[in-house]
Amino acid sequence: MIGDGVSRRGFLEVGGGVTAASLALTTGSAAALVQSGAAVRALGQEMPNDVELPAAPPRKKRADSVGFAIVGLGDYALKQMMPRFVQAERAHVAALVSGNPEKLNRVGDAYGIPRNARYSYETFANIAPDKQVEAVYIVLPSGLHAEWTTRAFAAGKHVLCEKPMALSSAECERMIAAGRRANRKLMIAYRSHFEPHNLQAMELMARGAAGQLRLLRTEQSYRMSPTSPSENWRVNRALTGGGALEDLGIYGLQAALYLTREMPESISATTFRPAGDPRFSEIFAQVSSQWRFPSGAVAQLATSYDSSGANFVHARGTTGALIMDPATNYSGQKMTLEAGGGREFQSGDPTVQFARQLDHFVDAIREGVRIRTPGEMGLRDLRLIEAIYASAAAGRTVRLNPDATIRS
Amino acid sequence: MIGDGVSRRGFLEVGGGVTAASLALTTGSAAALVQSGAAVRALGQEMPNDVELPAAPPRKKRADSVGFAIVGLGDYALKQMMPRFVQAERAHVAALVSGNPEKLNRVGDAYGIPRNARYSYETFANIAPDKQVEAVYIVLPSGLHAEWTTRAFAAGKHVLCEKPMALSSAECERMIAAGRRANRKLMIAYRSHFEPHNLQAMELMARGAAGQLRLLRTEQSYRMSPTSPSENWRVNRALTGGGALEDLGIYGLQAALYLTREMPESISATTFRPAGDPRFSEIFAQVSSQWRFPSGAVAQLATSYDSSGANFVHARGTTGALIMDPATNYSGQKMTLEAGGGREFQSGDPTVQFARQLDHFVDAIREGVRIRTPGEMGLRDLRLIEAIYASAAAGRTVRLNPDATIRS
Repeated sequence: MIGDGVSRRGFLEVGGGVTAASLALTTGSAAALVQSGAAVRALGQEMPNDVELPAAPPRKKRADSVGFAIVGLGDYALKQMMPRFVQAERAHVAALVSGNPEKLNRVGDAYGIPRNARYSYETFANIAPDKQVEAVYIVLPSGLHAEWTTRAFAAGKHVLCEKPMALSSAECERMIAAGRRANRKLMIAYRSHFEPHNLQAMELMARGAAGQLRLLRTEQSYRMSPTSPSENWRVNRALTGGGALEDLGIYGLQAALYLTREMPESISATTFRPAGDPRFSEIFAQVSSQWRFPSGAVAQLATSYDSSGANFVHARGTTGALIMDPATNYSGQKMTLEAGGGREFQSGDPTVQFARQLDHFVDAIREGVRIRTPGEMGLRDLRLIEAIYASAAAGRTVRLNPDATIRS
Repeated sequence: MIGDGVSRRGFLEVGGGVTAASLALTTGSAAALVQSGAAVRALGQEMPNDVELPAAPPRKKRADSVGFAIVGLGDYALKQMMPRFVQAERAHVAALVSGNPEKLNRVGDAYGIPRNARYSYETFANIAPDKQVEAVYIVLPSGLHAEWTTRAFAAGKHVLCEKPMALSSAECERMIAAGRRANRKLMIAYRSHFEPHNLQAMELMARGAAGQLRLLRTEQSYRMSPTSPSENWRVNRALTGGGALEDLGIYGLQAALYLTREMPESISATTFRPAGDPRFSEIFAQVSSQWRFPSGAVAQLATSYDSSGANFVHARGTTGALIMDPATNYSGQKMTLEAGGGREFQSGDPTVQFARQLDHFVDAIREGVRIRTPGEMGLRDLRLIEAIYASAAAGRTVRLNPDATIRS
């Protein structure tokens, strides 16, 4: 649905600052959007003024370091992810891709990226022969992941793609197939799999530190400021999907899977959208779901763009409970095991998650290490997200096969 | 289903200490059970050895005080409820009913109850002409509530009945009808409606202290020691129903209703019972449900007899959250409103809930005050409990009418 209709010319116009367009916001076409003012703002205005760019650019530390092209210079890339490259052992920023020339140059200068390694979306195809770039990190709005992952594979690069992998399982399947055809690696940037507290939580649950896991509850929410689909890609259906679930709730969805080490056999879900609120003219304000696992364990998940802030994972077992709050932030994780008295875990520095993720991908590229968060995991999660929306839309419980396709 | 089959003779035998019987535990017949060893233990062994009985009996403080007959001298009656009569303004213990003569006399002596106001289940009908007894407080195992409420009405008494009101909506309807026929009051002992923190929580939510309520989560659980249906009425289907939901989860169910001030329009639920565990040969270990309200708010409830202890209510709104943990204990309530900074509420002494409940019922009897927790509320809740079990049994979402009957 997205993808082929997104022309380079569309992106050129975007990058050039076209601000008006005949939008069909409710049709959900990303192809239409990228030629519109909405996408200009989505792709061009994400750098907040308070981002401090590095004084000395991170350097290539080892001869076998992998050079990454960063595709999309938004808030997350500039504030969280790119500054962490300095902590990676074998990963460095080698190129930038942005539709905003001013930003491209400002960030390029700060990171010491050569002028010829600064690409627009129009010139992206020129990246193919650039030997300094072995991998591409896709940090675009979610609705553009499939298209640009495919383009990166076409350019012969490995791809690290932000979550959600895409907006549909069909897109995920195409991305996986494109990677196979190109014989290149595909990894989804599920950073919690590289964060010390979440890793220790997996280990604690696996060894029954709370007994048999029976109830898992997660909540990821915040209250979004007034905005609209033409101003903010995160509330624009074509670029973000259903909304909070893909953006925030996916952390809870992931935790439910890596803490239970099971796939749900059924899901019942419900969505909510307040009437007349421009933030939610296209996306859901809240998505809540209840999952049942084959073991009998239950997960109750909730995520919202319109409630007070929450980011926790509670796992209750027969003999104890694990409380992670905050659970999946960029930093500041807190984790307590309530089992025969309380015990607080300081599992390590949460901020290493960014660099460890990069180095893991490099291990896969260089040594063929099996990727912990492959495209197949992203596909699995999109199937679950589709099951959640299908359940909510039908107002019924859906039964799943072990691969998360809907059975009934 | 219960009720008419429970003969006085059955109870006499129980009281007399018959310890063996041909049990049909899996048939779910309370009538069969009350003539069995299971019921002997259920009705006769509940007084723990560490109960301190009062040195000086609580007295009738005012001329218009209402005398209560306590039916069932179990743990809750002896340890929690009866000692709180001393705090009530117009309620006093006037009679006792028990199947255990030794206990009847020991508690009767401690509370200064005249010998002729100590009844067995066989002699219960003699309570009718006893003018000292105007009300009966039913504290029996839940499966006996309907039968003994009906008997109390037949004896011309008002009835305060413990939660759950009964084990089915049909029983509740019969109880309500019996009260109307007898022209006597019926109230359900939902003590949280008289507990200062819960009352203030209702008020806070009603005035939007957390914005619009969007997500309500409750959990009531503890891990039950090894036991079996023949040893413990709480795991005996005929006496307890499905288990934790009626006993513990009902507090969360109630909170979901009195904090949202709505009735759910749909419920999806799931139950769990570990195989081969004598505690759960007849009842569920865990019951989890997700409710959707007409406003779009969602409640996610869970209750368990087989997980680490929990008793909380979390109410998240658009601008804040109310955290009650513990929420509905006998004492020790803690409540925090997270909205523009955190604010802890000390709403009052939680232990007044017992006496205030008694005095409220007296107000209804004496002055005709409208009962805050009438039989109709108990009926409503049993309909919701039935909807939860129906959803879990069918593995599907059920839709409800505003009176909580299942629509589809």
